[in-house]
Amino acid sequence: MLSSPASPPVVPSTTPVVFPSTLYFRFRPTVATEVTIISKWAAPGFNLSLLRTMTHRVTPSGRAMLPGVGVFGTGSTARVLVPLLQAEGFEVHALWGRSEEEACCLAKELDIPFHTSRSDDVLLHQDVDLVCIYIPPSMTRQIAVKALGIGKNVVCEKAATAVDSFKMVTAARYYPQLLSMMGNTLRFLPAFVAMRRLLLEGYVGDMQVCDVRVYGPSLLDQSYGWTCEELMGGGGLHIMGSAIIDLLSYLTGTRAHRVHGLLRTFVQQNNLIRGIRRVTSDDFCFFQMLMGGTGSSGVCCTVTLNFNLPGSFVHEVMIVGSAGRLVARGTELYGQRNGSDREELLLADGGGVGPEAKEMPRPHLQGLSSMVKALRQSFQAHEERRSWSPGPVASAPTFEDGLYVQTVVEAVKQSSSSGEWVCVEIMSQEPDPNHNLCEALQRNKN
Amino acid sequence: MLSSPASPPVVPSTTPVVFPSTLYFRFRPTVATEVTIISKWAAPGFNLSLLRTMTHRVTPSGRAMLPGVGVFGTGSTARVLVPLLQAEGFEVHALWGRSEEEACCLAKELDIPFHTSRSDDVLLHQDVDLVCIYIPPSMTRQIAVKALGIGKNVVCEKAATAVDSFKMVTAARYYPQLLSMMGNTLRFLPAFVAMRRLLLEGYVGDMQVCDVRVYGPSLLDQSYGWTCEELMGGGGLHIMGSAIIDLLSYLTGTRAHRVHGLLRTFVQQNNLIRGIRRVTSDDFCFFQMLMGGTGSSGVCCTVTLNFNLPGSFVHEVMIVGSAGRLVARGTELYGQRNGSDREELLLADGGGVGPEAKEMPRPHLQGLSSMVKALRQSFQAHEERRSWSPGPVASAPTFEDGLYVQTVVEAVKQSSSSGEWVCVEIMSQEPDPNHNLCEALQRNKN
Repeated sequence: MLSSPASPPVVPSTTPVVFPSTLYFRFRPTVATEVTIISKWAAPGFNLSLLRTMTHRVTPSGRAMLPGVGVFGTGSTARVLVPLLQAEGFEVHALWGRSEEEACCLAKELDIPFHTSRSDDVLLHQDVDLVCIYIPPSMTRQIAVKALGIGKNVVCEKAATAVDSFKMVTAARYYPQLLSMMGNTLRFLPAFVAMRRLLLEGYVGDMQVCDVRVYGPSLLDQSYGWTCEELMGGGGLHIMGSAIIDLLSYLTGTRAHRVHGLLRTFVQQNNLIRGIRRVTSDDFCFFQMLMGGTGSSGVCCTVTLNFNLPGSFVHEVMIVGSAGRLVARGTELYGQRNGSDREELLLADGGGVGPEAKEMPRPHLQGLSSMVKALRQSFQAHEERRSWSPGPVASAPTFEDGLYVQTVVEAVKQSSSSGEWVCVEIMSQEPDPNHNLCEALQRNKN
Repeated sequence: MLSSPASPPVVPSTTPVVFPSTLYFRFRPTVATEVTIISKWAAPGFNLSLLRTMTHRVTPSGRAMLPGVGVFGTGSTARVLVPLLQAEGFEVHALWGRSEEEACCLAKELDIPFHTSRSDDVLLHQDVDLVCIYIPPSMTRQIAVKALGIGKNVVCEKAATAVDSFKMVTAARYYPQLLSMMGNTLRFLPAFVAMRRLLLEGYVGDMQVCDVRVYGPSLLDQSYGWTCEELMGGGGLHIMGSAIIDLLSYLTGTRAHRVHGLLRTFVQQNNLIRGIRRVTSDDFCFFQMLMGGTGSSGVCCTVTLNFNLPGSFVHEVMIVGSAGRLVARGTELYGQRNGSDREELLLADGGGVGPEAKEMPRPHLQGLSSMVKALRQSFQAHEERRSWSPGPVASAPTFEDGLYVQTVVEAVKQSSSSGEWVCVEIMSQEPDPNHNLCEALQRNKN
């Protein structure tokens, strides 16, 4: 799907990149000293801190500037993200869409000066220091890895496979000074931040059970696309379950070692997807994770995802321990200690993000908003435009966390087809591509 | 535990049995023509309808009388049941308790004329036509089978094992004219009656998923006893899960063919159970049942039982289908069709049974009350004291249903220890006792 030019564009290394849309310079004419070196083909070991020093940029008043942002994606998340970024003071300079029309339309709507359907045009954009990637999972790896190679900070959504996630981890390890975080936003939701704090303070005692339910309307797009295809990263488990898997490892401070799951596609065709087309991605998923210590000392997590419930969105995360329980319902946090006979409201919805966006559940919306705030804090501490301090985003999921989540997702899928408990084994080296091919063929055969 | 006399008491076959408490005749002196034949040792094929004709009893006015009731058990259910029976016009003539003290104490409290700790004294009581058995599961089979053999109608709680349940089924089949029903009361709860009707009417369309959650405080008794022992029928799965398994087969009109489960005992010792004693019964259980058609056409049921949540009792049964959903929360029924944007209350709590009894969840309490009403309707249609019409209790679980439930419970336990999906195979003949012994030994070894 991505247009990859046969030969790299020839760019003189000491002059600014010339962009298709020269309009851009009319909107942001403050930069004079900037030098951008395209490091897509830079040899490993290329001095990235030198590169960042070269692109150091300050406002005339000397105050540190927030990095310029390039956004990939025209879906519901991108549509919500851009205004949030703008509200926090980030300037969104470039937008990528799969087609020129989609990109143009959203760019106009969100007042973004530059749009394109060529990914390199955003990645090489001189004013883009931070790339936010909210596109179909199968395309994420390619763009995230390239962005890091060019020396841009990256916030991105999940990839489609564990192999892709592994390649992203490799890239992130290679450029440790660049920001590379997963855009799973639930960790930033104040209810879960408070929940984690209370868990650490011993509110529930020893954790025993996590019980999560996410119910909502169908996740399928209006037309046939990646959301319908399991192999493209569609389905409730991949789209919403990923965020839950990540959240539970954040809340419990531990990881799943064994999982068991059951996936179903109850709605295989609908008014919009019919004929020879059939949905292969799950609309119901139910999985269990054994986390932490083995044997009876660990935490049992049970997660039910059901996207055959049109109407309001239910998002409930309950953690039960020996001394009490904590329940996050939507964006609110409740708790009850074992001695007490009623539940107490521990954290009300902070409001602020307005009513629930139709296409985005409120916990994700508020989480995204909090994530953008954390990003601002992380970047504004530094004078350099691309420098960031880890403190404010310390709790963010790394690409390593992304690989873990993807591994769990694939283990649940494997369990659903084998009917057995599956051990979660995180990839430590890239598998032989031929071996992979063989597996893919076998999977199709079944 | 049961006192079984070495030789049967010698009772002349044509005179009334003489009871230890002759007080009884002072309270109910209406009977003159009654003849009771003790058929405990009656040969198979003994004409029970003749027996019933012989015990036919009418009031002087000619109006049909409700059968006299004997209650086994002094636990919370028995304590609630007796007043419900009395309110519906049943006379409770005899009460059995494990010890004389327990029996005496409760009999005084509930105004029952006769109490004993010898089971035969209740079973052979001439005014007892209906026996209600609410005792520890390991004792149920023995009394239920004996009661049927004596020609008494039986309402009883679950047995401890599938083998016991099978023996009860055999007895029930042998005496088809006697009432033999399981005391699982959720089927009678008006919310579930309405739910089943709406499911049949197509409110939710094609059923896809049932999602059940039961949360509550510990089920353990104050002192060490059968509730602590998995092999004695203790644990959340056996005590509360049984009712849910039965309910789901009632609601969906189909049965589980494969199950998968996970059991945990998080609280193995507490203030009351300590030292060398350890709880082996589950306080957390989580199981899935595939019901109805195989493959993707069936219904997926997921059940979460957690009894580490002191405080209020949560009882939620949700059925999601292609056209809508129905949710029973406690004793109330809610529904939402896919076109609608909000949930509607379909059936409010009828009230009537007063506030929640501390030891009995409200759905069970109200179900028990409705069951007693159905029993009255079933018996009052007939003039004969022991005759009943099947109509009002047509929806009641039979002993066959009890065997099915017990088989599912054991399959879930097996799945929890093997980690695999287990097929539900209903016993069709009694297993070789030696083979059983061998299995029990193996289980202990693991």
